[in-house]
Amino acid sequence: MKQKRGLLLVVALVLAAGCGLARAQSATDTKTLGVKTLDPPGAIKAVGTWSLGARAGDFICVAGMQGVDPATNRLVEDPQARIRQAFRNIETIAQSEGASLKDCVRLTVYLSDLPRYAPMVEKAQSELWGGPPYPPRTMVEVKRIYDDDIAEIDSVFYAPVK
Amino acid sequence: MKQKRGLLLVVALVLAAGCGLARAQSATDTKTLGVKTLDPPGAIKAVGTWSLGARAGDFICVAGMQGVDPATNRLVEDPQARIRQAFRNIETIAQSEGASLKDCVRLTVYLSDLPRYAPMVEKAQSELWGGPPYPPRTMVEVKRIYDDDIAEIDSVFYAPVK
Amino acid sequence: MKQKRGLLLVVALVLAAGCGLARAQSATDTKTLGVKTLDPPGAIKAVGTWSLGARAGDFICVAGMQGVDPATNRLVEDPQARIRQAFRNIETIAQSEGASLKDCVRLTVYLSDLPRYAPMVEKAQSELWGGPPYPPRTMVEVKRIYDDDIAEIDSVFYAPVK
Repeated sequence: MKQKRGLLLVVALVLAAGCGLARAQSATDTKTLGVKTLDPPGAIKAVGTWSLGARAGDFICVAGMQGVDPATNRLVEDPQARIRQAFRNIETIAQSEGASLKDCVRLTVYLSDLPRYAPMVEKAQSELWGGPPYPPRTMVEVKRIYDDDIAEIDSVFYAPVK
Repeated sequence: MKQKRGLLLVVALVLAAGCGLARAQSATDTKTLGVKTLDPPGAIKAVGTWSLGARAGDFICVAGMQGVDPATNRLVEDPQARIRQAFRNIETIAQSEGASLKDCVRLTVYLSDLPRYAPMVEKAQSELWGGPPYPPRTMVEVKRIYDDDIAEIDSVFYAPVK
Repeated sequence: MKQKRGLLLVVALVLAAGCGLARAQSATDTKTLGVKTLDPPGAIKAVGTWSLGARAGDFICVAGMQGVDPATNRLVEDPQARIRQAFRNIETIAQSEGASLKDCVRLTVYLSDLPRYAPMVEKAQSELWGGPPYPPRTMVEVKRIYDDDIAEIDSVFYAPVK
């Protein structure tokens, strides 16, 4: 009789403790303990004081991407293909953290010539996203892009930690 | 006696289970399952491979907004009124997700002429926010904005999921 | 005997309630109730319709920073020192919310002359970060920066609420 009551108390304690543990686990799951720097295989290499991307909680920030071919580490020649490659480079980094292009929540597109390259951005996105919904976007013409390039694309993704 | 003990065990189990359930519910509440694309009534229409905005967890990303009148789908004529309209367009999208201008946590303002239009941005914000606190802001002059416009405003809001 | 059973029930209830409370507390911890505007001691003063920074949940958004010396409220003379000061101004704001430069997850650097000042940005970051990992970065040349300055730096930090 006394043993049984003791057992009951133990059961209650274990359940309560388990519940607390589960909560703590959940807190750990929804919050990574810090910034996770990204450098996935197949992506371009970051040379300089920057990284390709970073996961912070449920968000993935990707560095401004240009149309560099990861195989050759050089800019793709054709403008339309180059802009498409910039998006592909973004995709590689996002995918390494479980995000697809559809999980993109913010795009900032910097172009060296807006009237000339904006239609190419639209074409590339149309092909790669395959249709709506598309992410919110800001697109402006700047005075110069690194390597006198035609496009640099900055992006943020949402990929909740499981 | 035995029944009472059984009852006690059931009570403990139900409490513990309820606690676990509440936790699971909380996890669902704090994380939407993916990106929610925004297209609220009264807002301008997005034409092209972009959306007006997106909710991602507790954050709302709004596309770069220009001073387009949603009623006519054309840029407002007067520069001061146009810049004010850009903020109003942002507000409409943010409000559809329960956020006010005071919930804005990041503004990037692109202008075609910084000395000329920065004071108009200040005036519009002063009127629409009604006083401090204002959000952190970055404001630069770029070479060209879509439609050779004078201002495009990019923004992020914080609106925790209830 | 009856008292002991009663005590056991109370224990179970207290444990379960405590568990629920802990969870509620956790939910409060991970979500601040709104935007927290930042204006820490030692930082520059924001004059106009903007703030130095804002905490939104686990993220800190910092306004575009220039190389203004907080002691004199004037731009630092030497270009390399000025760019370094811009990062120091960012750091002061981030640190007030418990974030270090290593918690930066997004940098957007606007320069008035990319070939000329990009190496100075690299040097300043190298010194201040002390080595990799560095945050993802986007760096472009714009037509004009406030006060015809040479650099303005926009940033976001990740600093989970304890």
